[in-house]
Amino acid sequence: MSRLPIQIKLSDSKKEKPDPQTLVFGRNFTDHMFIADYDEGKGWHSPRIVPYAPVTLDPASIVLHYGQTVFEGLKAYKSEDGTVRLFRPEENMKRMNLSLDRLCMPRIDEEQALHALTQLIQIEKDWIPTLPGTSLYIRPFVIANEAFLGVAPAKKYQFYIILCPVGSYYKEGIHPIKILVENEFVRAVKGGTGGAKTAGNYASGLKAQEAADKKGYSQVLWLDGVERKYVEEVGSMNIFFKINGEVITPAINGSILEGITRKSILQLLRHWNIPVQERKLSMDEIRGAYENGQLEEVFGTGTAAVISPVGELNWDGYKMIVNDNKTGPLSKKLFETLSNIQNGNEKDSFAWILKLNSELAKLA
Amino acid sequence: MSRLPIQIKLSDSKKEKPDPQTLVFGRNFTDHMFIADYDEGKGWHSPRIVPYAPVTLDPASIVLHYGQTVFEGLKAYKSEDGTVRLFRPEENMKRMNLSLDRLCMPRIDEEQALHALTQLIQIEKDWIPTLPGTSLYIRPFVIANEAFLGVAPAKKYQFYIILCPVGSYYKEGIHPIKILVENEFVRAVKGGTGGAKTAGNYASGLKAQEAADKKGYSQVLWLDGVERKYVEEVGSMNIFFKINGEVITPAINGSILEGITRKSILQLLRHWNIPVQERKLSMDEIRGAYENGQLEEVFGTGTAAVISPVGELNWDGYKMIVNDNKTGPLSKKLFETLSNIQNGNEKDSFAWILKLNSELAKLA
Repeated sequence: MSRLPIQIKLSDSKKEKPDPQTLVFGRNFTDHMFIADYDEGKGWHSPRIVPYAPVTLDPASIVLHYGQTVFEGLKAYKSEDGTVRLFRPEENMKRMNLSLDRLCMPRIDEEQALHALTQLIQIEKDWIPTLPGTSLYIRPFVIANEAFLGVAPAKKYQFYIILCPVGSYYKEGIHPIKILVENEFVRAVKGGTGGAKTAGNYASGLKAQEAADKKGYSQVLWLDGVERKYVEEVGSMNIFFKINGEVITPAINGSILEGITRKSILQLLRHWNIPVQERKLSMDEIRGAYENGQLEEVFGTGTAAVISPVGELNWDGYKMIVNDNKTGPLSKKLFETLSNIQNGNEKDSFAWILKLNSELAKLA
Repeated sequence: MSRLPIQIKLSDSKKEKPDPQTLVFGRNFTDHMFIADYDEGKGWHSPRIVPYAPVTLDPASIVLHYGQTVFEGLKAYKSEDGTVRLFRPEENMKRMNLSLDRLCMPRIDEEQALHALTQLIQIEKDWIPTLPGTSLYIRPFVIANEAFLGVAPAKKYQFYIILCPVGSYYKEGIHPIKILVENEFVRAVKGGTGGAKTAGNYASGLKAQEAADKKGYSQVLWLDGVERKYVEEVGSMNIFFKINGEVITPAINGSILEGITRKSILQLLRHWNIPVQERKLSMDEIRGAYENGQLEEVFGTGTAAVISPVGELNWDGYKMIVNDNKTGPLSKKLFETLSNIQNGNEKDSFAWILKLNSELAKLA
């Protein structure tokens, strides 16, 4: 990115903003986007905010053939007084660099990327919906755009940030989902790219997701690729189990994505003195806890839903109904606390919030 | 694709053709390309040959974020009498459909795709170099171009075929390469996408390749992701070991790509009554054979190099020098036989060759 000033070219026309009552995820994009270019030897250059427009790629671009691309996902929230809040955006930029490293792609300057992001959001702030549960989804991503069919790291890249207003994940309030434990397909394995936010991890999960859909399950629970015993993630969320008063989540092991919501949930739980363990957790142990009546709550965590309570786990036909298929008290408390910190209705005790105005003031 | 006729729009200008003596792989593309579109509910439509030009993608296109893309690679050879030969192209189209299935993408009509390919090559036939060892590399690929940030199979796709003249893989004749056995990183695992020709498998291999390069090794030998004991592939080639008169190659297990060169080599070996086994092969067994003086030859197989003899295998610092670091007699015979069938200097006993003229005659 370099420390160059961002060139800004505003759009001549503005799109009509979608009805905040009926927003869907990932379909409507704002009027502008951020772009920066990278060339080997020159580094990141030409940071600019331009009208949202198609990407032009040579058909031989490496991203289209060999998947050299990484992305991030985070949200901006606007309260009725107009304050715009970002939730731990510096964590996303940090993780993007870890993903870039894994894919042999050039690192970005995290601080500059954050400045670019805040400038873009300032320009698009009228796009941020204010209805409860709504937000502006932010998608930074880097693609390899060198035209070369050799399997080697590219010498040219582009960094984009695009924005889309999104609705409440839970249209009728938080409610539990049904999960199928996946025995056939594997999302990622130790030594692979599971710890990075990169395209291949998502492409590989589609087949299992499709099969789960057909059986009436909304997500799959991924098991480890080696022993097929230990839980890893659910869909594209991290997963937590409350067993006999303790909260257990799989430890970061190289094949699990280190979620920023996961990290925040762990901080909250420890702050509340609720016993927490990050460790290996097998399906056998979960089944044992269920049979002993100790499987109290199960929930996924991620940027989209914040908390997704799990009401049913189906493991090879064996169905475990969790907390009577209702949202458990801890899931509910975590959802409300984190959502309230994000939208400004609760004190930001952990300094997780970046207010847009204070960030912009730094730039002035 | 549907059975629609292919619309042809020729380029107003022609690019200068590169010097066949100094051709490099994957850098120079011909004047035209083939495109077809897919829309859910409508199927494949609008097949067309148009001037080679950039792809225009919404920044939110699924391929850029979630890697929904598959590709193929094959070659056309032109002999001095002007005959153009394709090597088993129907196998590539068949495999492309297997890859499309794995990635939840719509199948193509294999026969129509082959017709499109031959029509494109007919238009570009002056681009096919005739120097020994040169050929026209053909890259069919399908990308998801729906603008949607949800993790779900796209409802819109494009199928492309692009062409590039390529030089001899071995500028100074066939010679052995040095291979590093990879213990840290994993290319693919059972249950993953290793059996499909899709972007994520290549992206995940870059990091290991980069580390091997730094140590002076030109490729890595991938081990299985579960036990880290059994050989899988080398770089992006299949791998064969000649041990005590027998040729052994890893069996297709879901994480190995089923190479078309691999399949052809197996047919040749069986035709020659050389004992062949497709089975699991561990590094311990290879080391044992090496210590007993029974590791006679090692070679990779793939479209780019046909045969790549391996002169050195480095497994955690233990170096095995194969056949005195020279190309073995079997590797040489396989290379020459297959190359000669491909370029028309040897009888096509297995009906592997599709001659362009005879295929075009069918269309007339």
